[in-house]
Amino acid sequence: QGILERLDAGEIVIGDGGFVFALEKRGYVKAGPWTPEATVEHPEAVRQLHREFLRAGANVLQTFTFYASEDKLENRGNYVAEKISCHKVNEAACDIAREVANEGDALVAGGVSQTPSYLSCKDKTEVKAAFQKQLEVFMKKNVDFLIAEYFEHVEEAVWAVEVLKTSGKPVAATMCIGPEGDMHGVSPGQCAVQLVKAGASIVGVNCHFDPETSIETVRLMKEGLQAAKLKAHLMCQPLAFHTPDCGKQGFIDLPEFPFGLEPRIATRWDIQKYARKAYDLGIRFIGGCCGFEPYHIRAIAEELAPERGFLPEASEKHGNWGDNLSMHTKPWVRARARKEYWENLKPASGRPYCPCMSKPDGWGVTKGAKELMQQKEATTEQQLKELFQKKK
Amino acid sequence: QGILERLDAGEIVIGDGGFVFALEKRGYVKAGPWTPEATVEHPEAVRQLHREFLRAGANVLQTFTFYASEDKLENRGNYVAEKISCHKVNEAACDIAREVANEGDALVAGGVSQTPSYLSCKDKTEVKAAFQKQLEVFMKKNVDFLIAEYFEHVEEAVWAVEVLKTSGKPVAATMCIGPEGDMHGVSPGQCAVQLVKAGASIVGVNCHFDPETSIETVRLMKEGLQAAKLKAHLMCQPLAFHTPDCGKQGFIDLPEFPFGLEPRIATRWDIQKYARKAYDLGIRFIGGCCGFEPYHIRAIAEELAPERGFLPEASEKHGNWGDNLSMHTKPWVRARARKEYWENLKPASGRPYCPCMSKPDGWGVTKGAKELMQQKEATTEQQLKELFQKKK
Amino acid sequence: QGILERLDAGEIVIGDGGFVFALEKRGYVKAGPWTPEATVEHPEAVRQLHREFLRAGANVLQTFTFYASEDKLENRGNYVAEKISCHKVNEAACDIAREVANEGDALVAGGVSQTPSYLSCKDKTEVKAAFQKQLEVFMKKNVDFLIAEYFEHVEEAVWAVEVLKTSGKPVAATMCIGPEGDMHGVSPGQCAVQLVKAGASIVGVNCHFDPETSIETVRLMKEGLQAAKLKAHLMCQPLAFHTPDCGKQGFIDLPEFPFGLEPRIATRWDIQKYARKAYDLGIRFIGGCCGFEPYHIRAIAEELAPERGFLPEASEKHGNWGDNLSMHTKPWVRARARKEYWENLKPASGRPYCPCMSKPDGWGVTKGAKELMQQKEATTEQQLKELFQKKK
Amino acid sequence: QGILERLDAGEIVIGDGGFVFALEKRGYVKAGPWTPEATVEHPEAVRQLHREFLRAGANVLQTFTFYASEDKLENRGNYVAEKISCHKVNEAACDIAREVANEGDALVAGGVSQTPSYLSCKDKTEVKAAFQKQLEVFMKKNVDFLIAEYFEHVEEAVWAVEVLKTSGKPVAATMCIGPEGDMHGVSPGQCAVQLVKAGASIVGVNCHFDPETSIETVRLMKEGLQAAKLKAHLMCQPLAFHTPDCGKQGFIDLPEFPFGLEPRIATRWDIQKYARKAYDLGIRFIGGCCGFEPYHIRAIAEELAPERGFLPEASEKHGNWGDNLSMHTKPWVRARARKEYWENLKPASGRPYCPCMSKPDGWGVTKGAKELMQQKEATTEQQLKELFQKKK
Repeated sequence: QGILERLDAGEIVIGDGGFVFALEKRGYVKAGPWTPEATVEHPEAVRQLHREFLRAGANVLQTFTFYASEDKLENRGNYVAEKISCHKVNEAACDIAREVANEGDALVAGGVSQTPSYLSCKDKTEVKAAFQKQLEVFMKKNVDFLIAEYFEHVEEAVWAVEVLKTSGKPVAATMCIGPEGDMHGVSPGQCAVQLVKAGASIVGVNCHFDPETSIETVRLMKEGLQAAKLKAHLMCQPLAFHTPDCGKQGFIDLPEFPFGLEPRIATRWDIQKYARKAYDLGIRFIGGCCGFEPYHIRAIAEELAPERGFLPEASEKHGNWGDNLSMHTKPWVRARARKEYWENLKPASGRPYCPCMSKPDGWGVTKGAKELMQQKEATTEQQLKELFQKKK
Repeated sequence: QGILERLDAGEIVIGDGGFVFALEKRGYVKAGPWTPEATVEHPEAVRQLHREFLRAGANVLQTFTFYASEDKLENRGNYVAEKISCHKVNEAACDIAREVANEGDALVAGGVSQTPSYLSCKDKTEVKAAFQKQLEVFMKKNVDFLIAEYFEHVEEAVWAVEVLKTSGKPVAATMCIGPEGDMHGVSPGQCAVQLVKAGASIVGVNCHFDPETSIETVRLMKEGLQAAKLKAHLMCQPLAFHTPDCGKQGFIDLPEFPFGLEPRIATRWDIQKYARKAYDLGIRFIGGCCGFEPYHIRAIAEELAPERGFLPEASEKHGNWGDNLSMHTKPWVRARARKEYWENLKPASGRPYCPCMSKPDGWGVTKGAKELMQQKEATTEQQLKELFQKKK
Repeated sequence: QGILERLDAGEIVIGDGGFVFALEKRGYVKAGPWTPEATVEHPEAVRQLHREFLRAGANVLQTFTFYASEDKLENRGNYVAEKISCHKVNEAACDIAREVANEGDALVAGGVSQTPSYLSCKDKTEVKAAFQKQLEVFMKKNVDFLIAEYFEHVEEAVWAVEVLKTSGKPVAATMCIGPEGDMHGVSPGQCAVQLVKAGASIVGVNCHFDPETSIETVRLMKEGLQAAKLKAHLMCQPLAFHTPDCGKQGFIDLPEFPFGLEPRIATRWDIQKYARKAYDLGIRFIGGCCGFEPYHIRAIAEELAPERGFLPEASEKHGNWGDNLSMHTKPWVRARARKEYWENLKPASGRPYCPCMSKPDGWGVTKGAKELMQQKEATTEQQLKELFQKKK
Repeated sequence: QGILERLDAGEIVIGDGGFVFALEKRGYVKAGPWTPEATVEHPEAVRQLHREFLRAGANVLQTFTFYASEDKLENRGNYVAEKISCHKVNEAACDIAREVANEGDALVAGGVSQTPSYLSCKDKTEVKAAFQKQLEVFMKKNVDFLIAEYFEHVEEAVWAVEVLKTSGKPVAATMCIGPEGDMHGVSPGQCAVQLVKAGASIVGVNCHFDPETSIETVRLMKEGLQAAKLKAHLMCQPLAFHTPDCGKQGFIDLPEFPFGLEPRIATRWDIQKYARKAYDLGIRFIGGCCGFEPYHIRAIAEELAPERGFLPEASEKHGNWGDNLSMHTKPWVRARARKEYWENLKPASGRPYCPCMSKPDGWGVTKGAKELMQQKEATTEQQLKELFQKKK
């Protein structure tokens, strides 16, 4: 059954997790360029990660084609050991995803994401050509449906949907935005409306923000669609990092990005809460993005197991809310074998010299404004010193 | 070249990371029993993890035989889908480790760890028989050397070393203790002395404590050996979790163990500091235990690259202190492409409702003492109420 | 010169700090009832606190008549050692304030605050009678102007202003609300409009929220007045506690209220930031409420000294931005004698087992809603257990 | 009854709190010099603070003569508006303390503290002369006993005790040290022994460290005395700040000293725990130092009321463990009216951008060591860059 048949029937569809972050930690992706040449260089590593997500309960395997447009790969080309063609990267990604999908009953989704071309020149034809090039591979390899994801500008996302739509396959579209909307200030509700009008059957958000913030953004999208009397399925693939302190552009601007995010990693219990909240809002395509490891995806599948009626394969290695601790020799460890314990735990960071929240970088104070502030401060500072001097 | 030749020549030997935690997150190991039947059930997953550690710079691949003694596997047997024999688990572990080791130039180390038999009956013959059984497989499969690791009681560790020593192969021995010593109160220095006297050529600690605490424990071992005029190589394989708030029995007693440890995960920069400190103390076998992912092992190899003269394979996907951020479009992200930035960053947890430190469970207040305290409190409490009542 | 002459001339008027909290810590006010019988019982203590605020720079001394309406004093009467009449409490408060005001050139403001009568019966006549009774004392003692403060309901605040206005003296009115408005949902902007229409010449907020939140609320009041084309002076007397985690009803609902607020106490530098921000928004009556000690008031006076051209008396015992540390014997303490140091310091709490933020109590989940949630949870929980059972 | 009669009879004697910090916040003492010229300049402020401590339960009123030796006052003289003689400051301090002591039944203790002379020249005769000069005033004014307090060097403390002992009055001596001992490395046990041998009848610690650390130091003093078979009463007057992160020299080295310590202020419940612990160790002279406000002293008196059989005056304005909240209109506030609530509360700081712990300044890395480290780092850093360059 295809993605739309499943969603139309009211099924919960579980997505997979974040490839670039997981494979960076495994040694196959370079932070900074974040390009997916590993599909050619180390297919076994990519295959294994797909398998783990499948086993964890994912119903959709996304081809590892993030930032795999030709302009991006060229742009970052100096990082790739031997020049590997965009075509080869995308083909290999499709082959690996399909091979693993066939080991279960998952769907393969071909994915495109925002391009450097858009950011530099904004030429519609050129940008669309980049998507078209990837689409050709997806069609040849016959993926089950398509996802346009990680767009900061709804304009570019719409162009992507328009290209993907020509294939006749179902198209999902997610933006990496928060409740404040896209980089041009288009609200989440308006973004959703434009994407659905362009042909997307499924809309939502991915990356850049934590689960709570992302659900709030999807809620705004839902309201926008309702107001416009449009229908679409909802989708959410957030970070597995806590980012309550993010600004408009999400976790990129946090001082910890990308090499100091560890203390923010979500626990499996955080993800169970996310899955429940997403479900309660009516989201039925529920997955993850950067930071989501296989056990996070399993947490979604376990939380929603009562609704779905089954557990994923990987639950054979996992107890229900920690009940696998009930045999421990220490009574105080056995006492952790219950839902209430893990639900209420406020996990310590073990980092007494670190704060809880960061001020995002790049908070857009213009240079002029800053200078003005400094001047003013200098004046009052000088006056103040003189007053204190006089007092003495 | 064997392990002792390398260490005797002054080489730095890099160990691998933690299998049970990494494979638990990937869906192949069950937290609680923590047994390694995945070597038989899912060899591809175990193989891939070995490969990642090799690529990250590990010179030693430990067979995934943690808790693989017969008594442990039986004890936890109900968790294993089909009963898999201890023999098969150990054999498969050796085969996989050797296969991957041959892809590079790593050594294979057969590993044994503490047994439930010791804890329940303490019969020397029986406990030694369990180690002997595993040793037979290691001899048949011809591992390069042997590690007795994760012992809370030096008595049992000595028995393990005695068994392993009969093989004629070099033996390393690490205990999962902190500066306060083993569970019978034997100091780290005394533990080291006993292990070397029993035949260990390499001694140190693994698991249970964070890098800083573990290095302190090895320092005490070093002092103990010097005082006893004994010689041995030093080894350290700590947690990749920050645990400054641990009690005597380490991270097991932390309320977050094992499903809420995420905020404590070390960054790659934390591990670089660890590698440098370990090196400066004279430790030359430097690896990791639970929480160590491939990128943490790579951090050891990168920190010590100047001393070793080369970088690991996986550094082709990693910049020096974040220098791969220097191409980022945002100037404030580019500004993170330097050592000073990451060294001084105090990463936020994104968890404003969580504390930094936990009180370990099971802090050994005897029931009698607690009752006494409560009684006393009740008395003064009652008296106090009456005084306040009178006052009014 | 009267309060309005000063404000009309563009002067900055500095208010005083919080009496009930300061005197509670000194042993003269009981937390819970918070009534001001100390004016009769321990006039020397009240007098001394007035003196300290005067010396710190306060231009206005409020009579210590908080919660001194007859109904409140009776309601809490059992806490007062000997029954002291409402009349005596208010008279003594006026006498003490005037005595100290005459030691400098401060104005005396008679203050009324919300009544239990309003909360229990809402009878306009009865409530107004309570204010009238206090007003009579204020008229007899000839205070310089009047403040209606600490109102959660704008309706009652309007009644208070109407009563006070009959005196012919200038009336200021502040509500203890945040940006969400009063307890009936009236927005800050609307509150301000109603108060000005009732006759208040000065409007703003006091208590319940930290400086940052309070300034935001006054900003909304200012916008409301502008939209209604009304004119009034703005006033702000916030808490000296950090309360970013408050809900609608402010710090009362924080779990730490009132005996665990210490870690939230603002530093003098926090208050300097507040004074600057308040000034920049156009607020010209700037003071404090609960938590404000004399040194906090001095911080306002010092921050705004360049604008005012003079320092308060108490600055003879205070350096400019810590410059009194410049003689310290330790060089690292001397290094703290500069503005940049204190402005950027992120002070540690010394409490590693405590979090940064609290969830306010009483978050209004109705009992029905909670039960529903629990039922639902119980169902899925049961189903989940059965699924895991089957799996095994 | 004198101090020794009371202590010999097993009574608990409650000390007072910290004058310099409390009066700094009230505007009468300058941070940095910390000198007590307020006894002459503003006697009413000093008198009021004495009264509050008396009312809170203090049995001992210390003359406000901290840093009132002639050399210190001269040294810091430029801060004192008109030159006030050392003699006058000490005399006024005695008069005020006696006046207030007579309002209750408290004892007056004349106090001396460490001198700049000792630090600069270490001439025994000169240092003793400074103490002698203060002692003459104490004798003329006939204080009840003497306290030598705030000594970092036991040698100087012994000199002070020797001088004070000539008066024939009982002498107490406290050092501002932690468990690591005095600045010359003399252990707490040895310090206690030397002080008792010099003639002190009461020994202990004051200032510099939090209650928990200070009790630990007194415990070591007690052990030292026991080992030396000496007898003395024990005394403890710690900070009311949490300082678990202090180094050897206490809170002076914390980055927050002295203007950012607010988040560290102890709650009344923290102080109740302290009083109980101090009592359980056998300390019978229990008071406070910097940070102790009257309500903190009251907390000692309330905690030990069952043992003493009475409450202090100020408890008429304080409920037992918050029971004065039991009339609150909100049920969730009423729910705070119990001991268990306040005992277990982990108060939030409301400061999400601040950490819990600080690294003390001036941690004694010698300049040479630091340069060495930097050189080494530079070398490996350079080599590392070249290795990464080659790799690419």
